[in-house]
Amino acid sequence: MMTEFELIARLKPLMCGNDFVVKGVGDDCAVLDLGAGPDWVLFKTDAVVEGVHFEPGTEGTRVGHKAVARCLSDLAAAGGSPTAALITLGLRDEFDPEYVEALYRGAGRLAARYQMAIVGGETTRSPDRFWVSVCVLGRVARGRACGRGGAKVGDSIWVTGELGGSRAGHHLDFEPRLREGAWLGSEFGVSAMMDLSDGLAGDLPHILSASGGLGAELLGAAIPIRREARLEAARGTLAKPALVAALTDGEDFELLFTVDAGRAVALLDAWRERFPGVRLSCIGKVVAEAGIRLRDKTGVRALGVRGFEHFR
Amino acid sequence: MMTEFELIARLKPLMCGNDFVVKGVGDDCAVLDLGAGPDWVLFKTDAVVEGVHFEPGTEGTRVGHKAVARCLSDLAAAGGSPTAALITLGLRDEFDPEYVEALYRGAGRLAARYQMAIVGGETTRSPDRFWVSVCVLGRVARGRACGRGGAKVGDSIWVTGELGGSRAGHHLDFEPRLREGAWLGSEFGVSAMMDLSDGLAGDLPHILSASGGLGAELLGAAIPIRREARLEAARGTLAKPALVAALTDGEDFELLFTVDAGRAVALLDAWRERFPGVRLSCIGKVVAEAGIRLRDKTGVRALGVRGFEHFR
Repeated sequence: MMTEFELIARLKPLMCGNDFVVKGVGDDCAVLDLGAGPDWVLFKTDAVVEGVHFEPGTEGTRVGHKAVARCLSDLAAAGGSPTAALITLGLRDEFDPEYVEALYRGAGRLAARYQMAIVGGETTRSPDRFWVSVCVLGRVARGRACGRGGAKVGDSIWVTGELGGSRAGHHLDFEPRLREGAWLGSEFGVSAMMDLSDGLAGDLPHILSASGGLGAELLGAAIPIRREARLEAARGTLAKPALVAALTDGEDFELLFTVDAGRAVALLDAWRERFPGVRLSCIGKVVAEAGIRLRDKTGVRALGVRGFEHFR
Repeated sequence: MMTEFELIARLKPLMCGNDFVVKGVGDDCAVLDLGAGPDWVLFKTDAVVEGVHFEPGTEGTRVGHKAVARCLSDLAAAGGSPTAALITLGLRDEFDPEYVEALYRGAGRLAARYQMAIVGGETTRSPDRFWVSVCVLGRVARGRACGRGGAKVGDSIWVTGELGGSRAGHHLDFEPRLREGAWLGSEFGVSAMMDLSDGLAGDLPHILSASGGLGAELLGAAIPIRREARLEAARGTLAKPALVAALTDGEDFELLFTVDAGRAVALLDAWRERFPGVRLSCIGKVVAEAGIRLRDKTGVRALGVRGFEHFR
């Protein structure tokens, strides 16, 4: 089967541009310059499907939260703030209005926390399966939108929060890193940033290739592992090792970014002052040789998008 | 079962606003004021679902065209022009990449015709059924966005093109009335405007209620009927009469608008000059008494959202 990335590569030549486009396909958000004003506009859409992104029976409030939070995580990765959202619902014929209300309450609570308006949407029949498609508009200071390109050899690589084990609940309840992303992007200034949705092993290559085909060396012991991934790993010998879970589980919705190595101490000091409750980890550095190598107590191993090469 | 309108009424109190919102839920597009600049921003989303909005086996180019054109029709109704779009695809596991490419070609041809950029989107698994969700950003001169409210007693009621019989093909191939809508909204100036998606009988009440609970008198003989609706009606006594089809079939994607009666001749003259190939019909007038009454050769009849009251 064709992967999503292969499909997007095939579709990319069919996308058309115009004078409004600062950045089109291939980053977390599209960036538009709508003319006058101090801000650029960010534009992002995403969808969650029952049985794929959430189990049937998941509370409506959590589904609404997740559907919106995924888009906001992309705005955060661009260093932006949310302005307005539209929500489209694909509803089964026998849908429960109470459930839909709960979904909107979950979406609305999150929106209100970041002063984002929900300005409407659409409902449509979807006979077999319930889904939610969300579109958000955001803003970022002109010229300050972060993207995946821009990492340089020698930059330090950072990640917020903890990774792995998201399926235990984090994937439904995570808080998009909007405040952190806006500060990193617009105030502190990072060289590249994205949000982690497919796992560190799957997502870091996007920054490296967008930055001109660079590589990375990661330090296994520095990678922050979520408690749920450790608990899951402790279940038995058939379980996924916690480090592999942190690298490949996906749906972390944390920020992955690179910073000039000379600014690492300044970053840590400012971060602790600003976001004392949020873990920040330096997990490695950008190198010239392509590919990702991970160093841990067993030695240095090559990392593929699905984890260590020998796990495939 | 709850209708879409009942559901939206229930969800409306859960939508939150902010200082950017000029117009939120309840019109064809949301209207946002993002600060400086001569334009307001229009924001709209819509989705099409296999087996609901198009039959399985419909060519990808036509599905892509329809998915985007539905959103553009809403921009047209606001008097706006399109800026950029995002396309989200819910794909079956065994999707055909050629089909998806064709869909993007159909979407891209339409976008290029109106200088709209397609700046990305998302693909997600949708195991049972293929769907397409589109989100568009548009623009309209500050203060010039048309909406459903604004019709006054005595205004003449107009419709572009022809109505009914859309399922024969028009619903897949229609051209959104962007040029006409922009001219009507920003240059000529109409009192209220919307696009026809649920049929004249279902949609006109939106203008009347948004304009303060007014009514309308329509002239049956003036309602422009599409050839396909006439052909279908001629099939036999069990077929829907052509006028009923024109009132209730839906998916016409024509513009319905109201204009001060004193400007009717000026409108017709300017229209013929500007859009010689596009039919424009004056179909009735706005009155103070709520409800829609239709006059034809059999007399005056009350019109409900599903057609004549006695057809229900």
